[in-house]
Amino acid sequence: MKIDVLTLFPEMFSGVFGSSILKKAAEKELVSYHVENFRDFSDNKHKAVDDYPYGGGAGMVLKPQPIFDAVAHLQEKNDSNPRIILLCPQGEPYNQQKAEELSQEDHLIFICGHYEGYDERIREHIVTDEISIGDYVLTGGELGAMVIIDSIVRLIPGVLGNEASPILDSFSSGLLEHPHYTRPADFRGMKVPDVLLSGNHSKIDEWRQQESLKRTKNRRPDLLDKHPLSEKQKKWLNE
Amino acid sequence: MKIDVLTLFPEMFSGVFGSSILKKAAEKELVSYHVENFRDFSDNKHKAVDDYPYGGGAGMVLKPQPIFDAVAHLQEKNDSNPRIILLCPQGEPYNQQKAEELSQEDHLIFICGHYEGYDERIREHIVTDEISIGDYVLTGGELGAMVIIDSIVRLIPGVLGNEASPILDSFSSGLLEHPHYTRPADFRGMKVPDVLLSGNHSKIDEWRQQESLKRTKNRRPDLLDKHPLSEKQKKWLNE
Repeated sequence: MKIDVLTLFPEMFSGVFGSSILKKAAEKELVSYHVENFRDFSDNKHKAVDDYPYGGGAGMVLKPQPIFDAVAHLQEKNDSNPRIILLCPQGEPYNQQKAEELSQEDHLIFICGHYEGYDERIREHIVTDEISIGDYVLTGGELGAMVIIDSIVRLIPGVLGNEASPILDSFSSGLLEHPHYTRPADFRGMKVPDVLLSGNHSKIDEWRQQESLKRTKNRRPDLLDKHPLSEKQKKWLNE
Repeated sequence: MKIDVLTLFPEMFSGVFGSSILKKAAEKELVSYHVENFRDFSDNKHKAVDDYPYGGGAGMVLKPQPIFDAVAHLQEKNDSNPRIILLCPQGEPYNQQKAEELSQEDHLIFICGHYEGYDERIREHIVTDEISIGDYVLTGGELGAMVIIDSIVRLIPGVLGNEASPILDSFSSGLLEHPHYTRPADFRGMKVPDVLLSGNHSKIDEWRQQESLKRTKNRRPDLLDKHPLSEKQKKWLNE
């Protein structure tokens, strides 16, 4: 998979692309990252990328020209028909299903604005997907792009080895994970539940299922609405 | 505000903390960042930070000792009573209200796991807030910590100058932003709506309100349920 990022702050990405799973995926040649400053594509003599909004109002708006030309350059260079993703608060809320969908693509281009709004013609004529990673305000699209890239790359076959287990994969199962414990069994007076030390695997499995259900009910009852429950789970919930 | 991060991948943070608003906030001494590798606190001779889960199962679990001792060190060093935030998929969903709440604090410690689960005793005995930035699976807590830190720091009084307008602040108003346009009025045949060129400010304002409402209805009808609508807005929606 080829991943291109258009940003005014390319230096934000090096630490994240150069660590851990994202780094290993590139070393295995399963993905390649390319970060481009779209200011370099401005045909303005001052290399301006933004301008005042028509109709007045606070803030600046990203001009269409630098982004149109940067995207055209990347499409031509790669001779591809990429998904072009705009990070913005108005986008569709990101979730694991979308991560799985995007992980099937060969080429993705991420457009990251910073401070400013985007000229609407960018959305209408270039972008294939507008995505928001959550209902909170960030300074730019860069962190959103990193979040999406991390969630996608780890789904590409061959990227994850044994070091990254499905232990955190709450959203794949539909319920929140049960509690985990490791040694020591008594850490400064704080003890591991007896059942986990019992060696009785059917009891352990039942305890884990119950804890997972309990935690989901207490913390994220909205997930239960989307998750078809077994008869046993319904009985546990009523207790 | 003091921000401490506990992670196994400290190098992930330099690009983000060293750019844009987060960098400027530190230069103005409104915030200070400190990233610590909690492996350095392991009392294990191999500096191990994880171990197998009690009761069996895939994956590894972060041991309590290195994290307990790293947090104790940071509390002692700062002589403070910080909020201690664990990034995890089981946490409360992050939103702008939580960002505002955390931006009032003097000292925050972020605990970022990677691949592994956390020993439950960390959650029970140290952590004050478990947060999830969204319903998708990430390789570790680092990107979540960066997202939260960005959203918080920009709310600290004095951090944002004129360069960062409220133009992206969809979630503060409760509705999604209306479209923005900047020059040229005709970009390669794609035109700016006439109303924005009219100079009629009451018409422009009405158009923006209607577009904002339309976009919210089409893309995020869930936000309308939370937003009290005026009589005029209700009328527009019905049309």
